[in-house]
Amino acid sequence: MHPTPEVDTDKPREECGVFGLHVLPEAGDLDLATLCQLGLFALQHRGQESCGICVASEDEVRIEKAMGLVTQVFTEERLGRLAVPGARTAVAHTRYSTTGSSRLYNAQPLTVRSNKGVLALAHNGNFTNARELRDAMLAAGAVFQTTNDSEVMLNLIARYSHLDLRRATAMAMTELEGGFSVVLMDQTSLIGLRDRHGVRPLVLGSLAGGWVLASEPAALAVVGADHVRDVRPGEMVVIDDLGLHSEQIMAPTPAPCAFEWIYFARGDSVLDGVSVHDARVRMGERLAQEAPADADVVIGVPESGLAAAVGYSRASGVPYDIGLYRSPYAGRTFINPTQHLREQKVRLKLGATTAVAGKRVVLVDDSIVRGTTSGRIVRLLYEAGAREVHFRVSSPPIAHPCFYGIDTAARQELAASTLSVEEIRRRIGASTLAYLSEAGLQRALGQPSVCLACFNGRYPAGKPSEAPGAIASEEETVLA
Amino acid sequence: MHPTPEVDTDKPREECGVFGLHVLPEAGDLDLATLCQLGLFALQHRGQESCGICVASEDEVRIEKAMGLVTQVFTEERLGRLAVPGARTAVAHTRYSTTGSSRLYNAQPLTVRSNKGVLALAHNGNFTNARELRDAMLAAGAVFQTTNDSEVMLNLIARYSHLDLRRATAMAMTELEGGFSVVLMDQTSLIGLRDRHGVRPLVLGSLAGGWVLASEPAALAVVGADHVRDVRPGEMVVIDDLGLHSEQIMAPTPAPCAFEWIYFARGDSVLDGVSVHDARVRMGERLAQEAPADADVVIGVPESGLAAAVGYSRASGVPYDIGLYRSPYAGRTFINPTQHLREQKVRLKLGATTAVAGKRVVLVDDSIVRGTTSGRIVRLLYEAGAREVHFRVSSPPIAHPCFYGIDTAARQELAASTLSVEEIRRRIGASTLAYLSEAGLQRALGQPSVCLACFNGRYPAGKPSEAPGAIASEEETVLA
Amino acid sequence: MHPTPEVDTDKPREECGVFGLHVLPEAGDLDLATLCQLGLFALQHRGQESCGICVASEDEVRIEKAMGLVTQVFTEERLGRLAVPGARTAVAHTRYSTTGSSRLYNAQPLTVRSNKGVLALAHNGNFTNARELRDAMLAAGAVFQTTNDSEVMLNLIARYSHLDLRRATAMAMTELEGGFSVVLMDQTSLIGLRDRHGVRPLVLGSLAGGWVLASEPAALAVVGADHVRDVRPGEMVVIDDLGLHSEQIMAPTPAPCAFEWIYFARGDSVLDGVSVHDARVRMGERLAQEAPADADVVIGVPESGLAAAVGYSRASGVPYDIGLYRSPYAGRTFINPTQHLREQKVRLKLGATTAVAGKRVVLVDDSIVRGTTSGRIVRLLYEAGAREVHFRVSSPPIAHPCFYGIDTAARQELAASTLSVEEIRRRIGASTLAYLSEAGLQRALGQPSVCLACFNGRYPAGKPSEAPGAIASEEETVLA
Amino acid sequence: MHPTPEVDTDKPREECGVFGLHVLPEAGDLDLATLCQLGLFALQHRGQESCGICVASEDEVRIEKAMGLVTQVFTEERLGRLAVPGARTAVAHTRYSTTGSSRLYNAQPLTVRSNKGVLALAHNGNFTNARELRDAMLAAGAVFQTTNDSEVMLNLIARYSHLDLRRATAMAMTELEGGFSVVLMDQTSLIGLRDRHGVRPLVLGSLAGGWVLASEPAALAVVGADHVRDVRPGEMVVIDDLGLHSEQIMAPTPAPCAFEWIYFARGDSVLDGVSVHDARVRMGERLAQEAPADADVVIGVPESGLAAAVGYSRASGVPYDIGLYRSPYAGRTFINPTQHLREQKVRLKLGATTAVAGKRVVLVDDSIVRGTTSGRIVRLLYEAGAREVHFRVSSPPIAHPCFYGIDTAARQELAASTLSVEEIRRRIGASTLAYLSEAGLQRALGQPSVCLACFNGRYPAGKPSEAPGAIASEEETVLA
Repeated sequence: MHPTPEVDTDKPREECGVFGLHVLPEAGDLDLATLCQLGLFALQHRGQESCGICVASEDEVRIEKAMGLVTQVFTEERLGRLAVPGARTAVAHTRYSTTGSSRLYNAQPLTVRSNKGVLALAHNGNFTNARELRDAMLAAGAVFQTTNDSEVMLNLIARYSHLDLRRATAMAMTELEGGFSVVLMDQTSLIGLRDRHGVRPLVLGSLAGGWVLASEPAALAVVGADHVRDVRPGEMVVIDDLGLHSEQIMAPTPAPCAFEWIYFARGDSVLDGVSVHDARVRMGERLAQEAPADADVVIGVPESGLAAAVGYSRASGVPYDIGLYRSPYAGRTFINPTQHLREQKVRLKLGATTAVAGKRVVLVDDSIVRGTTSGRIVRLLYEAGAREVHFRVSSPPIAHPCFYGIDTAARQELAASTLSVEEIRRRIGASTLAYLSEAGLQRALGQPSVCLACFNGRYPAGKPSEAPGAIASEEETVLA
Repeated sequence: MHPTPEVDTDKPREECGVFGLHVLPEAGDLDLATLCQLGLFALQHRGQESCGICVASEDEVRIEKAMGLVTQVFTEERLGRLAVPGARTAVAHTRYSTTGSSRLYNAQPLTVRSNKGVLALAHNGNFTNARELRDAMLAAGAVFQTTNDSEVMLNLIARYSHLDLRRATAMAMTELEGGFSVVLMDQTSLIGLRDRHGVRPLVLGSLAGGWVLASEPAALAVVGADHVRDVRPGEMVVIDDLGLHSEQIMAPTPAPCAFEWIYFARGDSVLDGVSVHDARVRMGERLAQEAPADADVVIGVPESGLAAAVGYSRASGVPYDIGLYRSPYAGRTFINPTQHLREQKVRLKLGATTAVAGKRVVLVDDSIVRGTTSGRIVRLLYEAGAREVHFRVSSPPIAHPCFYGIDTAARQELAASTLSVEEIRRRIGASTLAYLSEAGLQRALGQPSVCLACFNGRYPAGKPSEAPGAIASEEETVLA
Repeated sequence: MHPTPEVDTDKPREECGVFGLHVLPEAGDLDLATLCQLGLFALQHRGQESCGICVASEDEVRIEKAMGLVTQVFTEERLGRLAVPGARTAVAHTRYSTTGSSRLYNAQPLTVRSNKGVLALAHNGNFTNARELRDAMLAAGAVFQTTNDSEVMLNLIARYSHLDLRRATAMAMTELEGGFSVVLMDQTSLIGLRDRHGVRPLVLGSLAGGWVLASEPAALAVVGADHVRDVRPGEMVVIDDLGLHSEQIMAPTPAPCAFEWIYFARGDSVLDGVSVHDARVRMGERLAQEAPADADVVIGVPESGLAAAVGYSRASGVPYDIGLYRSPYAGRTFINPTQHLREQKVRLKLGATTAVAGKRVVLVDDSIVRGTTSGRIVRLLYEAGAREVHFRVSSPPIAHPCFYGIDTAARQELAASTLSVEEIRRRIGASTLAYLSEAGLQRALGQPSVCLACFNGRYPAGKPSEAPGAIASEEETVLA
Repeated sequence: MHPTPEVDTDKPREECGVFGLHVLPEAGDLDLATLCQLGLFALQHRGQESCGICVASEDEVRIEKAMGLVTQVFTEERLGRLAVPGARTAVAHTRYSTTGSSRLYNAQPLTVRSNKGVLALAHNGNFTNARELRDAMLAAGAVFQTTNDSEVMLNLIARYSHLDLRRATAMAMTELEGGFSVVLMDQTSLIGLRDRHGVRPLVLGSLAGGWVLASEPAALAVVGADHVRDVRPGEMVVIDDLGLHSEQIMAPTPAPCAFEWIYFARGDSVLDGVSVHDARVRMGERLAQEAPADADVVIGVPESGLAAAVGYSRASGVPYDIGLYRSPYAGRTFINPTQHLREQKVRLKLGATTAVAGKRVVLVDDSIVRGTTSGRIVRLLYEAGAREVHFRVSSPPIAHPCFYGIDTAARQELAASTLSVEEIRRRIGASTLAYLSEAGLQRALGQPSVCLACFNGRYPAGKPSEAPGAIASEEETVLA
């Protein structure tokens, strides 16, 4: 139906963006559905498979969700159906996942009727003990319609039938393990929360007459909201007509995901007080100090490698230039070149400019997952006349899977889990190859403590009791 | 997206068709999805809004459902996604309802994971105590994602966590009130059941190496199955690799819906031992005896009035002819004639032939709900030269709502609930108007006991504790 | 994209329906696009592949055409695009053809800019000398973008650059051979014409403040127009703000197509003064006289065989009944039963009622092309308990192709071109088989002269100089 | 249906990309349709409204064209329909235009049957004397179905009925005025030509066993072809099984469009021997010399302003940084922010990074058309903390319309046609504003002669005899 965006299998994939807002009666008749659409559009890079918006007044709840990009799904017609008179609260979600229309059942927000009224929930991240919790509830007679962690959390909240929504949510939060940010609403209030490690981001903004929650600050800006602060690790914020209430449900032990700064988050985001752009430039600067190269020009792999390339140039004194043209249409291609043109595939996305001809080139990228695309880019540069290609990666080698909402490749596919740096260099055909060190990354981030599990295998928020691969394949069986 | 079929608002509307099958390993690799598609196609007249098919092997369950007609929804692509290797069990459903894409959440079959494995359920009819049951389960911590009775039944079954599927279903069946037929499956068995009154039909067929359940016999014929018998009121049949097992869960007190024979069921169906075609001819014959007319020709309103017209002609001796041409494209029109052409609207569907010119016409129809269309047809005949139009209805006046799965109009819109026969005659402009009597209908049906609630307000399977209108509008609020 | 209606390959296929109107300024601001949509809807049976509407004011011309049924193509959005302010003239077309989206180029009306302004043309039928005319114009430097006869006629009209539209059209009409009805417009007038044999129908209606042209009277009725008369063979009517002008361009030698009355036209049409319904009843009556049968019941194959069955019953005294239920959804199926269910295919469309059980049945159909479906229907009746099946066809055997706009099968596929009646009887498995005689058909029609070419190979309007198969396949090459 | 990409109304819009190839029998069975798809994908930036591919063998011609992006239009199904056995020649086209489905009639390639066989033609640019040529052919009896210049050229070629395709095309070429590149095919040969000024680009590539023509070199690279050379102004190349033949039909008077280097062409293109990337860097360098600024950082407006920003930084010594994040989804947005969020619109596309906070910023963009977006970007930077914003434009002010295939705004909307530089500076709110001079641009391009008509109003290839606005609106009337 719609052209599914091509997944760059040589980059980790984020799984979700969340958005929510609550406005006071005095804010007037705002079009909450359109505000959600704008917010989701600004978070589209966090998930391109499906998206959904739930809008409620005290009298009525409406939801629309579908497979596709925000601009494909939220047509005038669908936005019109979400025009709830007197709407005051809304949550929205954009999601990455694999293909297949039946996955619509897993699209978020998830909406249920419960003993606390109608609830809608959207999350980013993973509960590492979701399976145990679900098995216990199944035994007690619950039924599950999706394979989505949101359904586990909603059932958990409903089990506290003697508590109100706020207290039941707080209790559920203490039972859930893993890395996650959640936005949840009933017909009169909006709740936001972040796991005690703050693995996934969640920011708070203020709007004339209301409050906004979002995965990244850009989603605040597009709806005209001011960026107030980050929701804190372990914090639950409750927004209703009485205003904003904060409760520190669990003691914070911060470990935000380093990859948000390295690759996922937008270049204009500031997360947990650290500018993504500045962090990337500093990663490049440190990389230049740790792994200098005798070269004529520094170029970056667009888009995520460009800021680090600027930093590398700045610290090394080697001139910066634009060596790769990126097709603005590349993201949506499903073109399958015939066999003998497979090598040409990278050319659908990238073309080398004359900036590299006859030069010794430093090529900066943010990460290498499998290495396939990296090798093709190196060859592209040689064909365009580069004399040497010094590949520099502005993060450490990825060697471990993520259990907190990011889809890296399976472990055996991760180049760095089975190959040495020299072996990877040979595979991609670069003149030299170097990665930023863990210490260098931490200093570039300037954060006392970040999650580096995909680099070093140390999981601050625990691991699921069973291998995630196994769970996933069983889930498939349940409700394909 | 798809052209939704126009609803003839002057006819009652059936709400569902169900279909299910289980085949033995020796049946070979049958394409269960295509068999379901054929079965649903034969039941399309029972519901045109959405449809779904769930197919399972012992290892895997897949489901596809969407808004639209069977031929629109089940494209080659969707059928391909349902090609489960080693598939043995399947259930399918086609549903009538109002418009709105969010109604997709209410499409059936409904599929859940439970303590009895993965279950898929499809039903036709209504549980009159669904609301009480749901309220009790909500209080106990359950959450509901749809406004569909199927979800109530699935939760009810899961609550019997100490019983196996068969016993739990039997227990649930005794708790449920109203008029309903259900097909239910797990990954190794198929269950069919009919409420103790047998309000809605369910028939059993045998296939080489398997068994089939369906709302009407035509759905057996299109998949090459033999019609074995009707499932009995209060009976539960369980089909698995050990064969067919029958249990009479509740003592039968038969009251099958008379409207199945009057209008809903296909003319080639035989339900509970009574041929639909023969019953309609007999209704016409009795109508001729009860309400003769001095006329030149008998014509029927296509399609459902034709058989009764043949009966009327046969019993009265007045010659039968084809007085109305029905456009084969009429069913799908959403054409909106401009204001001054509103009267022309009936012409999109019907055109009078020369058979009525200069004649005194007996016009036979199966029922009158509002009377709007009836009046337009009468005018059409006069314009085509009819000298007199004697309107004869082959069923009694409809004056009460149905609570067992049929959408008649709201009570105040039913012509017969507020107007006398003479007032209706004047509204529709007929020379004379007569309805078949209740006694005449019962004798034409030749059944000792049928549900005539919409005619006489006596509800054999009870009424919901609250007005259905009120419930419906609250449900709307919950999950539009 | 859209579910293409299944083609019943055992029936001849009509190729087009045309519609046009011109309204005076005093008619006010009529919505011409919606009037065209209504008219096309009433003509949908004449072509289901593509449709188009062209609407013009003196200042502006707009056209919309697409593959699909009228209700699929003319959405609110498309009708909105056709809302030309001050619109006064419109032509519309619905077309049958084979599949393939590139055939959109052949959809009508065809619109061109010429030395006579912008012209839009739609036709029904074929020009047997189209190839010669086109070859001559190609040699003179013309280019052709379609394989459509309309383009030939428009080029022909433009070649008369010294004449005005009316005179140029009259000249073109005299050059064109074959069987055709045409509606043509510029921005101020509407022209309708029929070949001198009147092979294809064209009727004239009057609307308050305007005139309407259409292939059948039902299209007049749906727009509220009165049926004035048929356009005469060889006549050209010109409608503009001065009113209706008629010119008899060529001397009429009437030979209207008999198949319009046998099968194509709607049962409520009256063409060239003869009621389609009455003609069909008379065909059945004559058939009963020519080929009586010792039987218990007469049934018709819905829909086109029903009226003849009524006539057969009336003349023979054998009671009429409804023996076959026809699914109202049959027309749109593209369901492909798996191999072992091929025989079930007819059951998607038809089901036998209990009316035939234990009976000796007369089965009346309007025609047999290949005989495949006929054989399946006979088996269906036997399976439903018929003791004998006496097949009666209310027209003579079809043994020759049509060159005037009807797609019969290729000659070698026509059962009657290679098999004797007895051989066909054996193929379809009937107890006896009889066709109506040519003389019987002519008397039933009561027309002095009709085109019976598909029965007797005598072509009143000539044949193309080359085999049509050859032309068609070459055309395919040109612009697939 | 498909999300039409948003048009950045503050940039000129290119109107077309062309592509063609011819392969020898020894090249084996290449999938020409997929090669065309790849080529068009690489040219997608030159036109996003519609696209088409025509593929031919000696025996068969097939064409597919539709509204939408290359990846939307050329699904597996459509490519499958283009799989002509033994295909040897193909042309393809991608087109920018305004909205409206009826514009499908104007999609290219245009395919006609003529006295030279079936021809398919695609062009980029405009014929300034198209109207005169068409009027003459209309008078002589031709009809036109589109408002497309391609139809004029095809009719012109067909008029030379005594000449073969090659000679007739050469004659047509001498009659046509304006700026255009054309690819044209019959079933055995491919022809490419460029007007004598070479206004629009056309490059030639060689493939194993064949030749390729394309608007830009990137389209050669994606199909694995080597870039051989540019087609020369006034040259016609003919490619058939005998190889490549070149004829200099008209004496070249080169005046290639400067805007190809400034904005349109991809950054990895080399056109007429000049690297687009290098030219843009040089424009930035010269701009720094002509219009220095006392600043802390240089940033570019992505994507087209980035290379000039690198050049500005290099020549001025002011550090380069990435000050604006561009959403990769921006191109497809049709989001309409509500009124009070209009100012937020630019935020859907761009977000300022922390690189500008507290800085005096030089902002480099390639051009200003209306100035609306420019003003919004300036405000975005101030809100992000920029202390000063020095706007630098790497081309001269646009003050005149283009008649050679580019859609600049209407003259009265061009900021520079009515406002002084100081007035524009005030409108956009920049601290200072400066444009590159014409002389500076010419030196940066290093071409002896380029078309600068949109800057200085001197049209090297002439102007249409009537105002283009007037023609356009009349065309609208003809065939909307």
